[in-house]
Amino acid sequence: MAREIPDIVIGRLPVYLRELTRLAEDEGKINTSSHELGKRLGISSAQIRKDLSHFGEFGKQGTGYHIKYLIEQLRDILHLTQEWDVVLVGAGYLGHALAHYHGFHRRGFRISWVFDNDPAKIGLKMDELVVQDVADLEKVVSENNVKMAIIAVSANQAQAITDRLVAVGIQSILSYAPIHLNVPPGVEISYSDPVVQLQRMTYYLA
Amino acid sequence: MAREIPDIVIGRLPVYLRELTRLAEDEGKINTSSHELGKRLGISSAQIRKDLSHFGEFGKQGTGYHIKYLIEQLRDILHLTQEWDVVLVGAGYLGHALAHYHGFHRRGFRISWVFDNDPAKIGLKMDELVVQDVADLEKVVSENNVKMAIIAVSANQAQAITDRLVAVGIQSILSYAPIHLNVPPGVEISYSDPVVQLQRMTYYLA
Repeated sequence: MAREIPDIVIGRLPVYLRELTRLAEDEGKINTSSHELGKRLGISSAQIRKDLSHFGEFGKQGTGYHIKYLIEQLRDILHLTQEWDVVLVGAGYLGHALAHYHGFHRRGFRISWVFDNDPAKIGLKMDELVVQDVADLEKVVSENNVKMAIIAVSANQAQAITDRLVAVGIQSILSYAPIHLNVPPGVEISYSDPVVQLQRMTYYLA
Repeated sequence: MAREIPDIVIGRLPVYLRELTRLAEDEGKINTSSHELGKRLGISSAQIRKDLSHFGEFGKQGTGYHIKYLIEQLRDILHLTQEWDVVLVGAGYLGHALAHYHGFHRRGFRISWVFDNDPAKIGLKMDELVVQDVADLEKVVSENNVKMAIIAVSANQAQAITDRLVAVGIQSILSYAPIHLNVPPGVEISYSDPVVQLQRMTYYLA
């Protein structure tokens, strides 16, 4: 793993990619500049140039970046030239929303399986998926060589599910459970907890 | 606004608060240390001590932190001694999940209104809320002096909704729309986009 490049830089690349895609697809633009991109994202143009310089020389003096080319390069850097299968654990309200979200596919991901331990949920249809028994989690992950998972279970269940996922080969986890999870080195984890985000903002409220 | 303290420090306080609450409520612990807290969160104890030192002296040599006291102090710093009303815009699958999420209340927030522009959704019950017509958004926000909003609408609608919320006094926005939003200085914004999080992690996948 190329840990030489700071993770915070890697974290900004998907945001650049998202905005470039918007410029190309929604606005039909051909070229852009670090100045324009920075202005749209509230990031300095110097920061953008510095971030991209870790990976090569993508712009030209005078004309800036050719958007489609830069999109291709970023997709290559982020390993998005393939579509990644993702296993979703948890078929509650949030799992339901994730299973129905159509924003994954265009951007490199497909939720291919959804699991729950609730007999009332197993067998239910969610968009094009059928909720499977979490007892079959290991079998499905290993047979399909899945590397990515999304956890949408309660805080009390999240660590046990994480341990099971990691044991069977999952290397990247996005967790919506409001709890810090322990994973071994080499496993990436990312969290989404709306309350943590809201609490940061109330600090700034009078 | 006390911008002297780095925002990244503020962003870690809710994570400390969450873990401390877990230690106290789920595990019945009375005291902890920066070492224990750091080990549980994968953060160095020096970082935790440094972060907290911005706000005062909360620990004692030898005994460490009294958990309930530190929780009270953090709640005070983050302005969580009151419960904040939050307006939710968007009653699709994700809005539905947010409206039904019971994790807000214990941690300082209450989704008090939910809005949508879809006549098929207006009037529907979501948990204890009834979906209201987004035409009434300004009226409700200003009459109730609401300061916080969650946006769960599509990318195409998000900036327009943001502009309306800001114009009527909203100062903190958590957006689930996969797009960068422009807000004036003094308005805090936080984003949650699962694809951006997944794309950061695929970088590290072989």
